[in-house]
Amino acid sequence: MSTARSFARSPCAVANSLDIVGDKWSLLVVRDLLHGKHTYKELADSLEHIPTNILADRLRRLEGAGIVSSTPYQQRPVRYAYTLTAKGKDLGDVLLAFVRWGKRHIPGTVALGTGRAKAAPAARKPAPRRASSKQKSGSHPPKDDR
Amino acid sequence: MSTARSFARSPCAVANSLDIVGDKWSLLVVRDLLHGKHTYKELADSLEHIPTNILADRLRRLEGAGIVSSTPYQQRPVRYAYTLTAKGKDLGDVLLAFVRWGKRHIPGTVALGTGRAKAAPAARKPAPRRASSKQKSGSHPPKDDR
Repeated sequence: MSTARSFARSPCAVANSLDIVGDKWSLLVVRDLLHGKHTYKELADSLEHIPTNILADRLRRLEGAGIVSSTPYQQRPVRYAYTLTAKGKDLGDVLLAFVRWGKRHIPGTVALGTGRAKAAPAARKPAPRRASSKQKSGSHPPKDDR
Repeated sequence: MSTARSFARSPCAVANSLDIVGDKWSLLVVRDLLHGKHTYKELADSLEHIPTNILADRLRRLEGAGIVSSTPYQQRPVRYAYTLTAKGKDLGDVLLAFVRWGKRHIPGTVALGTGRAKAAPAARKPAPRRASSKQKSGSHPPKDDR
């Protein structure tokens, strides 16, 4: 048992996960990245209209937590493309659980963006109907349409 | 498509779920109720030491959202036992996803309380190793040890 390390609240896996993504916005940013968005502008344009200061804060925190990585895709001014790390992609399981719960218990809600191909600034191949785990090796993350 | 209703942010199932439980505490209260806690004192005694004003607020909001129901178990002073509704128990799926993600990506975290029988104020039968979906019919909710 390696529970001797100091946790903010407890060694509970749920509590520590919530310390990272337990707010109203972080998982929506992860959702959009999973659905193929990459740029700050694309993320800011989501249906929920995340305030830009919150978006900047959440991207910084998600990157600090190893969930998001950023690479410059343009100089003068520098602009970054954001992608999910393996740790971030694994949050798709949490998102799916929320989708199932929401659709079952909050009438009228839908799985937003699932199955829709989003246009990215750089040319991207549309995702196949059944994405394999190694469909792409480019600078963009594999699209996760689960 | 019944998406004409007015949602706070969007018809996204994830966004609307987060509008209810997207904070650092609500899902920990649900976790504890799933693990067999019922009273305010039991919930306040969790490892994370939820501040009592936040606990009272979250219980009120969770009850308002149809996730928790309360029944008085004592008069003078009135004290309430809190249980999860079917809608609340279904959040176990979300909790499990967080447990898997946390254990995989946050070193040292554990599935807190899972499999442990908690003592409740009223006499309760210990949960069987494999809980069936209709193991009990008393005033307490079935223990969910998934």
